[in-house]
Amino acid sequence: MKVSDKIRKAESERRCFWSFEYFPPKTDVGVVNLFDRMERMYMLGPEFIDVTWGAGGTTSDLTLEICTTAQSVYGLETCMHLTCTNMPREKIDIALEQAKKAGIQNILALRGDPPRGQENWTKVDTGFAYAVDLVRYIREKYGDYFCIGVAGYPEGHIENPDKEADLLHFKAKVDAGADYVVTQLFYDVDVYLDWVKRVRAMGITIPILPGILPIQNYSGFKRMTALSKTIVPQFILDDLEPIKDDDQAVKDYGVRLAIQMCTQMKEAGQMGFHFYCLNLERSTRLTLEGLGFVAPREQVRPLPWNPSLGKNREKETVRPIFWRNRTKSYIMRTEAWDEFPNGRWGDSRSPAFGDIDGYGVRLKYPAQECLQMWDHPETLAQIAALFVKYCSGELPSLPWSDSPLQGESDVLSKRLITVNANGFLTINSQPSVDGALSSDPVYGWGPKNGFVYQKAYLEFFISPAQLDLLVDRIRQHPFLTYYAVNKDGDLRTNTKGDSPNAVTWGVFPGQEIVQPTVVEGSSFLAWKDEAFELWNQWSLLHGSDSPTHKLLQGIRDSWFLINVVDNNYKSRFAIYDILDEIAAQTATSVAH
Amino acid sequence: MKVSDKIRKAESERRCFWSFEYFPPKTDVGVVNLFDRMERMYMLGPEFIDVTWGAGGTTSDLTLEICTTAQSVYGLETCMHLTCTNMPREKIDIALEQAKKAGIQNILALRGDPPRGQENWTKVDTGFAYAVDLVRYIREKYGDYFCIGVAGYPEGHIENPDKEADLLHFKAKVDAGADYVVTQLFYDVDVYLDWVKRVRAMGITIPILPGILPIQNYSGFKRMTALSKTIVPQFILDDLEPIKDDDQAVKDYGVRLAIQMCTQMKEAGQMGFHFYCLNLERSTRLTLEGLGFVAPREQVRPLPWNPSLGKNREKETVRPIFWRNRTKSYIMRTEAWDEFPNGRWGDSRSPAFGDIDGYGVRLKYPAQECLQMWDHPETLAQIAALFVKYCSGELPSLPWSDSPLQGESDVLSKRLITVNANGFLTINSQPSVDGALSSDPVYGWGPKNGFVYQKAYLEFFISPAQLDLLVDRIRQHPFLTYYAVNKDGDLRTNTKGDSPNAVTWGVFPGQEIVQPTVVEGSSFLAWKDEAFELWNQWSLLHGSDSPTHKLLQGIRDSWFLINVVDNNYKSRFAIYDILDEIAAQTATSVAH
Repeated sequence: MKVSDKIRKAESERRCFWSFEYFPPKTDVGVVNLFDRMERMYMLGPEFIDVTWGAGGTTSDLTLEICTTAQSVYGLETCMHLTCTNMPREKIDIALEQAKKAGIQNILALRGDPPRGQENWTKVDTGFAYAVDLVRYIREKYGDYFCIGVAGYPEGHIENPDKEADLLHFKAKVDAGADYVVTQLFYDVDVYLDWVKRVRAMGITIPILPGILPIQNYSGFKRMTALSKTIVPQFILDDLEPIKDDDQAVKDYGVRLAIQMCTQMKEAGQMGFHFYCLNLERSTRLTLEGLGFVAPREQVRPLPWNPSLGKNREKETVRPIFWRNRTKSYIMRTEAWDEFPNGRWGDSRSPAFGDIDGYGVRLKYPAQECLQMWDHPETLAQIAALFVKYCSGELPSLPWSDSPLQGESDVLSKRLITVNANGFLTINSQPSVDGALSSDPVYGWGPKNGFVYQKAYLEFFISPAQLDLLVDRIRQHPFLTYYAVNKDGDLRTNTKGDSPNAVTWGVFPGQEIVQPTVVEGSSFLAWKDEAFELWNQWSLLHGSDSPTHKLLQGIRDSWFLINVVDNNYKSRFAIYDILDEIAAQTATSVAH
Repeated sequence: MKVSDKIRKAESERRCFWSFEYFPPKTDVGVVNLFDRMERMYMLGPEFIDVTWGAGGTTSDLTLEICTTAQSVYGLETCMHLTCTNMPREKIDIALEQAKKAGIQNILALRGDPPRGQENWTKVDTGFAYAVDLVRYIREKYGDYFCIGVAGYPEGHIENPDKEADLLHFKAKVDAGADYVVTQLFYDVDVYLDWVKRVRAMGITIPILPGILPIQNYSGFKRMTALSKTIVPQFILDDLEPIKDDDQAVKDYGVRLAIQMCTQMKEAGQMGFHFYCLNLERSTRLTLEGLGFVAPREQVRPLPWNPSLGKNREKETVRPIFWRNRTKSYIMRTEAWDEFPNGRWGDSRSPAFGDIDGYGVRLKYPAQECLQMWDHPETLAQIAALFVKYCSGELPSLPWSDSPLQGESDVLSKRLITVNANGFLTINSQPSVDGALSSDPVYGWGPKNGFVYQKAYLEFFISPAQLDLLVDRIRQHPFLTYYAVNKDGDLRTNTKGDSPNAVTWGVFPGQEIVQPTVVEGSSFLAWKDEAFELWNQWSLLHGSDSPTHKLLQGIRDSWFLINVVDNNYKSRFAIYDILDEIAAQTATSVAH
């Protein structure tokens, strides 16, 4: 969707809105962390995000990758920056083509800073000298496809001392086809408001978002404002002086100041705000909280998972539960599907999942970090201990779960800890929910005045011997359904047919029941390949003769992956009791 | 579905099963009543029903019509009788072709009785002389398409005194391709069991259903058994002698005897029973109850409405609520749809409903009966009084509701009475249900171990002035959605878009949420044509200059039809309070 359309919608609903800006990190770990942050900050409800362009091509591929992932995996409406710096026409064409292919509809067209180490900006051959040329080029070549943003300079462009000429320059960019404006950062609100007045007086009507950078630390602030010659009102310097050595106090002041600035602009009629996050989360979040800005819940969580904004996926309304902790892999493996939902309901079967070899099932963190987290387990008990640590929040990640246990599983964590301590290695779970309000802070999603439901779910690895015991017991529970499968695809189930079982659904005013999460056999078989391959990936961190390698391979080769659904969402999930009993029974029989 | 497959399934589930036989009534009112009875007896869970053939063509068209309606409107698996009497080959071909077209897959092939007034049976030119020829013909011409039943004569055929030749005759019918047997009625169970033994000894393995006719009255029983030379054990005659003048006592005895006979057969291994209902309900129902026969609930009510067994409709899983009291009209108006559900979900819109003129919107009862029921109302108060009488069960029918108020609306009837007394003329309603068991006797439907839900619903005619007041008040209730429309199609609604609102749904183990009943704008517009036309039909019972005619036409021309859904199924329906308030307010303002 176009940023300009989103802004128009927010304005027509007379609500404030905000956007976040990120830059491509320099390290792999940095990228992993940025994605985590983006996913979390989704809940703050930005109308869109943007990602700066890796000037000179050094990180431009990364910019594109981050944009694509944000758009299609995390479902954030994304705007890609594009600069003229070191960009011959061919490179610009490639960047735009790739952005379009990724479903990105927003470009912030900039001239860009001079490349590092170069003092003055110079145009490359076949490239553009000014942002206005880039705007014109995109508009000519792509018509209305892209929404184009441009930069505004409330204090005038640093390289142009003539304020009036600067404004005319700006007007030319807008006239060339810009749809909205994001300004450079500033700290003098009066300057901004005055500039907006002058811009409007010139007949420019497109939305303008002020760029806000909450001060993070004193020396950085001083250096940056000096470099960019940003006007800093005296009272700010006065305020900072006594606390300049206390980083935390400076950060807190930065938040207070940002709140104060936004409040002043809001009182002058400003509704949208653009935050330069510097890839950080805290200051932006605190500022929004301080302003009392809360995104409409239904906008933030239209479904229990973040809908992808990727191409062809607009109608994706249902996903299997299995990839919940590995969304990116699901998105990539279903990239080739031409329709969503595709064969998830009714008679037609699921289309093929992309081959897991195609993109490689990978551990999320670099090898060294994985080894630090997971050590060298040599016994099943040590493996189980890792799973217990993950459930209790002491480990941030396991191969099957890229991020810490989700909030909604808190109510289960005690039971999960016991189950894992007993050697049932859980990788996915959800509690039952019997008609919580759609506005519920933990379980809620979807439009207001609705009710949401969940069937309890548990997925775990289990040894073949214990699987026999478990299947025996499940037989006495008519409400439990399961699928179990080993690496080689030997499937056991008590379900009939392969119809999808809706495990998350919502009932909303004036519409059909929405059923966004399902359990079903055919996609479970695609998932198991990945789930077992992750044991392999983990084992490859260790020498092939090492006890750890052999242990992990042993589990991979002989254990089963099982998922259990409690179809009675009105009572507590029987599976935990059953697993506790089996553990007790097995322990006894071993003891005797 | 084939009767033979249904029998096989019941036997594999080791449960008793039963079927009902009807005949084509002689009068229009009789036909109307038979349909009512069939619809009610659906709840007794017959595995199938059959309808006798109108011998000599006098009522054969009616047979076909009844079969088609039973199969497609009431969702009863239907077997059509077909006899050789007065049936040249061309007529047989037409009958089979029409049956096939109607989706009927079962034929009971009989020779038939001689035509009325003729003593001996004679074959017509190009017709068949024996049932065996008819069986062979159907099998040759239609292959496996039809399941073919034949008659069995436990006491031997009345026209054939040679019992052994009779058995060979029977075997020939089976060998010609019969799939199951229904016997002539009998009252000596030993004779039946002995005959079955001999039949089985001949190597005949197809299912045999004994024909049961509970005695209805003494003289009829005597006449019928004498005519057909049926063996009547002496004890029955002895039992009947003292009560023969007490019709009720004879009926009760008939039920007790039928229970006793079935019990004896059941103990001998018989699992299926065929009831000659004589178009009556009571004796059959009491016999089944006495035997403790209860059809599996999920079989009887797979959905809140009876699924059609008509051609192309196997996948029909959703219907608009509007035609709930006029199912036949809905089935006919959607006859041309090539797919079900067809455009009811998602983006694609509903296909066109058949024109109401195509088959005529009719009052269900003949004019004379309608006038008796509804009299000559000349004021709005008198109209309202009729609606009140319908809601309180004193009137069996209104133009919009062919049969008495449904059981599940009992909880609402008090409120409905008040609402109608106040001049809001209700024609459809359902209470809210928040997760009743799928086995619930009133609200339950679908597979076991499920939970069913309903949003409260009310549909009524309202004057334009009161509609304004109502819409005003609805604005304060975010959970209420409505559509209101007058004859000319002026639509008012507070819904956005035309997405269907699921007002009945069920959650079952291991499957998606089933949402069989919806409210949506486009089908409401098709329904309103019919709803307003029924005012016209009613008015046509009265001379065009009569006050009644003018009154009914006046309502038709100016009032609105409105449906209201309470999307909060967890609390009580606010609409009744609102309507009561409006009535009070209007009354006051008129008084002043």
